[in-house]
Amino acid sequence: MQIKILTAYPNIFPGSLDCSILGKALKQKKWSLEIINLHDFGYDERQSIDDEPFGGGPGMVIRPEVIEKALISLNLNKNIKRKLIYMTPSGNVLNQSKMSLLSQSEQLVILCGRFEGVDQRAIKVLNFEEISIGDYVLAGGEIAAQVLVEGCIRLLPGVLGQPESLLEESFSNNLLEYPQYTRPQVWRDAQNKDHAVPKVLLSGHHENIRQWRKDKSIEKTKLNRPDLLEKKKKEQEKND
Amino acid sequence: MQIKILTAYPNIFPGSLDCSILGKALKQKKWSLEIINLHDFGYDERQSIDDEPFGGGPGMVIRPEVIEKALISLNLNKNIKRKLIYMTPSGNVLNQSKMSLLSQSEQLVILCGRFEGVDQRAIKVLNFEEISIGDYVLAGGEIAAQVLVEGCIRLLPGVLGQPESLLEESFSNNLLEYPQYTRPQVWRDAQNKDHAVPKVLLSGHHENIRQWRKDKSIEKTKLNRPDLLEKKKKEQEKND
Repeated sequence: MQIKILTAYPNIFPGSLDCSILGKALKQKKWSLEIINLHDFGYDERQSIDDEPFGGGPGMVIRPEVIEKALISLNLNKNIKRKLIYMTPSGNVLNQSKMSLLSQSEQLVILCGRFEGVDQRAIKVLNFEEISIGDYVLAGGEIAAQVLVEGCIRLLPGVLGQPESLLEESFSNNLLEYPQYTRPQVWRDAQNKDHAVPKVLLSGHHENIRQWRKDKSIEKTKLNRPDLLEKKKKEQEKND
Repeated sequence: MQIKILTAYPNIFPGSLDCSILGKALKQKKWSLEIINLHDFGYDERQSIDDEPFGGGPGMVIRPEVIEKALISLNLNKNIKRKLIYMTPSGNVLNQSKMSLLSQSEQLVILCGRFEGVDQRAIKVLNFEEISIGDYVLAGGEIAAQVLVEGCIRLLPGVLGQPESLLEESFSNNLLEYPQYTRPQVWRDAQNKDHAVPKVLLSGHHENIRQWRKDKSIEKTKLNRPDLLEKKKKEQEKND
């Protein structure tokens, strides 16, 4: 999978993308990362990329021809499963099924906004899909792009050391993951209070453990994300 | 505002957090950033922090006493408006009003999960609030923490050059932001097609521009986020 990122802040990358399992997969060439500096395609000798918004208002907007020039420099080969994505809070909201879909692309070209965003003509004419990582506003699209790339790359075959981790994690089957416990079996905290691991997890009884974890998943989802349970119910009714 | 981050991958930071307006505010000491390496509090001579999950299953879980030792090292002063946050996909979902609330804290201590997460006893006993940045799974909490910090810091007084930007951005009033346009007034693309800026934006007629932008906001929200319009309707009914 090829990742190409268009940004005004190239030094924010690779960030998390060359650490841990992602970094290992990058070294193994399971994916590649190219960072394109938008300022290389600036419209004046100062390499400016932004300008005042028409109609007034605060902030600056990135000019359309800057984006187009940067794209053209990539020499995009036509015969490839490619997606052009613009990270913006006004896009469609990313979720795990969208992540899974995007991870099947051969190439993702990701545009990071800054300031008041990008001229809307560039987004429309150059055919960028607008994607938001959540209902909040950031200073720019760079961290949002890292969210997208990290989430996609970990789904590629051979990237996770233990791919069975993918089966029971949050959002599979619209449930949050069950709580996890590890050693020490009884943890004595700094106040000298003891906290034991739930007994069932020590029982060695696989079916009981499975059932306990399922109950805890549902309990946690009810508490933190009742909307996911509603969604699950609707999907089940649809399938019935 | 003091930000303290507990992580197994300290070199992922500062990432985006010392760039652009956030970096400027950091130099001006409008906020501070301290990164704590969890491996400094490992439980053996190899500085290990994780162990196998009780009850079986893939992956490793961060041990509770490691988290507690790291917290104790911070010498947390009691008389301060502080929040302890654990970034996890199974937490409550972050949104702009939560971001705004968190930005009023004096100190945020943010724990980044890795592997299969953190022993649940540590989260409960040490009183971490579980927060998710969206309905997808990442390789770790580091990028999620950067999302949270970037979103909070830009809301601090004096950080944004033009604070009026905050008034019309996405999610204020449950609407997405209107599209933005800048020079050139007519953009000739590489296919020699011309794309003009919407005429009303050149009219100088402030009331018409305001109305057009409002219409476009609603139109875009209808298209990309009908759920936000539903939410807006419900809130209005509540206020009536």
